[in-house]
Amino acid sequence: MDFLETCRSRVDAELDRRIASGSASERLQEAMRYSVLGGGKRIRPALTLAAASALGQSADAALVPACAIELIHAYSLVHDDLPAMDNDELRRGRPTAHIAFDEATAILAGDALQALAFEWLTEAPGVAASARLAMIQELARASGHSGMVGGQAIDLESVGKSLTLAQLETMHRHKTGALIEASVRIGALTAPGVSELSLNALTRYAKALGLAFQVQDDLLDIEGDTETIGKPQGSDVARAKPTYPALLGPKGAREHLSSLLSNALQSLQDFGPEADPLRAMADYVVTRTH
Amino acid sequence: MDFLETCRSRVDAELDRRIASGSASERLQEAMRYSVLGGGKRIRPALTLAAASALGQSADAALVPACAIELIHAYSLVHDDLPAMDNDELRRGRPTAHIAFDEATAILAGDALQALAFEWLTEAPGVAASARLAMIQELARASGHSGMVGGQAIDLESVGKSLTLAQLETMHRHKTGALIEASVRIGALTAPGVSELSLNALTRYAKALGLAFQVQDDLLDIEGDTETIGKPQGSDVARAKPTYPALLGPKGAREHLSSLLSNALQSLQDFGPEADPLRAMADYVVTRTH
Repeated sequence: MDFLETCRSRVDAELDRRIASGSASERLQEAMRYSVLGGGKRIRPALTLAAASALGQSADAALVPACAIELIHAYSLVHDDLPAMDNDELRRGRPTAHIAFDEATAILAGDALQALAFEWLTEAPGVAASARLAMIQELARASGHSGMVGGQAIDLESVGKSLTLAQLETMHRHKTGALIEASVRIGALTAPGVSELSLNALTRYAKALGLAFQVQDDLLDIEGDTETIGKPQGSDVARAKPTYPALLGPKGAREHLSSLLSNALQSLQDFGPEADPLRAMADYVVTRTH
Repeated sequence: MDFLETCRSRVDAELDRRIASGSASERLQEAMRYSVLGGGKRIRPALTLAAASALGQSADAALVPACAIELIHAYSLVHDDLPAMDNDELRRGRPTAHIAFDEATAILAGDALQALAFEWLTEAPGVAASARLAMIQELARASGHSGMVGGQAIDLESVGKSLTLAQLETMHRHKTGALIEASVRIGALTAPGVSELSLNALTRYAKALGLAFQVQDDLLDIEGDTETIGKPQGSDVARAKPTYPALLGPKGAREHLSSLLSNALQSLQDFGPEADPLRAMADYVVTRTH
């Protein structure tokens, strides 16, 4: 997908450039670089750039905020992979951070990446100070106890339990949905004077997309192969994690996915071609193979 | 010490009130409360309030920023105590978070406390938006890879090694000094139109105090008793951690401490009685028994 490819190279270059230096410890810095520059798909930063573009804002102003969101995503993966959490040894086809370095360094690298995300948002060039403050608030709420980290806690508590569809959605709205929503909203906040109406429409888009992302993730876990998805196939099932296919069956999960895609696209109906990148991202999220 | 006592009750009440609700997971929320409301000395928030007061700013405007800094301190202790880090089972005379809950919950509680600190700074009542942004930048830099977390990484790398005095100071300037400095500077930033001159003087004060804090910590480890200091006496020595008494001898360390106290007080010479709380805090830090 062209838009995502373009975003990925811009984001990768900016991450590489900005995360290069200034750590008190060289080993810590290496672990941070390893965790961030490990070939992620960059879906969240691409959503930030796409949302900015939907409101006529240039990618330049949204680039640093987009990278800040990717730092939060990267830190959450590093901590999620720890032995006390999911105990994963493979991520994106490479050893996870605590395997490549050690557990203490992985914990610290995650902690430092979180702080760096907020630091970068304070510096975002081409964005008004009030908008930078709003973005920080958005990211802090989306990534903390009432958002992503809260969702990870629900996830841990849910292993081996049978959840209702509503409980599963609550978990995912927090665990992955909140940061995807923040990615879109932060992109929108880079546009001066964004209206409540536009922000609400984009939020509805992001909410539907966040759930769709997770349904597709669950489907890939049962249908994808280890090499393509970069982690052992069937690992959710092996851990008795509740999933959409387990609750709805594979066919039901695919129908749910397609209805979420419709909702996402429907939310963009008042936008013109400037929202095409957001539409393309929605198509990508539900058809991706890894 | 009266000033610290007063600060502690105000900070404890505000932390208790603010950290009460809104988590996606009840267990996560309990772990966050447990980690923050465990009877800390609240030295950092007291420094924030004292610095605000030195510039004629009321404690009201500095209270939320002060509490945000305490959240960062609390999260760093939770992660520091983890099995992969210092593996401590006792903190402030109580089981550490990963013992009282579990390791995964402790990791997540630390992560969520960090995000919450930045969230609170975006909301600080009675502080201009530009000052809130400056505080967030200050706290992010002080607590991340170029500050506190960087210092923790150096600390881990230094176990069992012999450091020079300069290397020891570099470690402590990052590990504990950076956050103490930020506590003072963030207090100063609550005062509208704080001059560079005042900010520089307060920064010099904070740098000296940060090192003094650590020298006294090292002295307490060899001279204090387990019950008073809330952790096993002699634990630094047992871990072969480099310390000031080990490098300078106990007498040399006490002389160093007293010279750092002089430096701290000297930095405040252009301030009148409004800086008395800062002076009292410096005296407290070097004479405290736990």
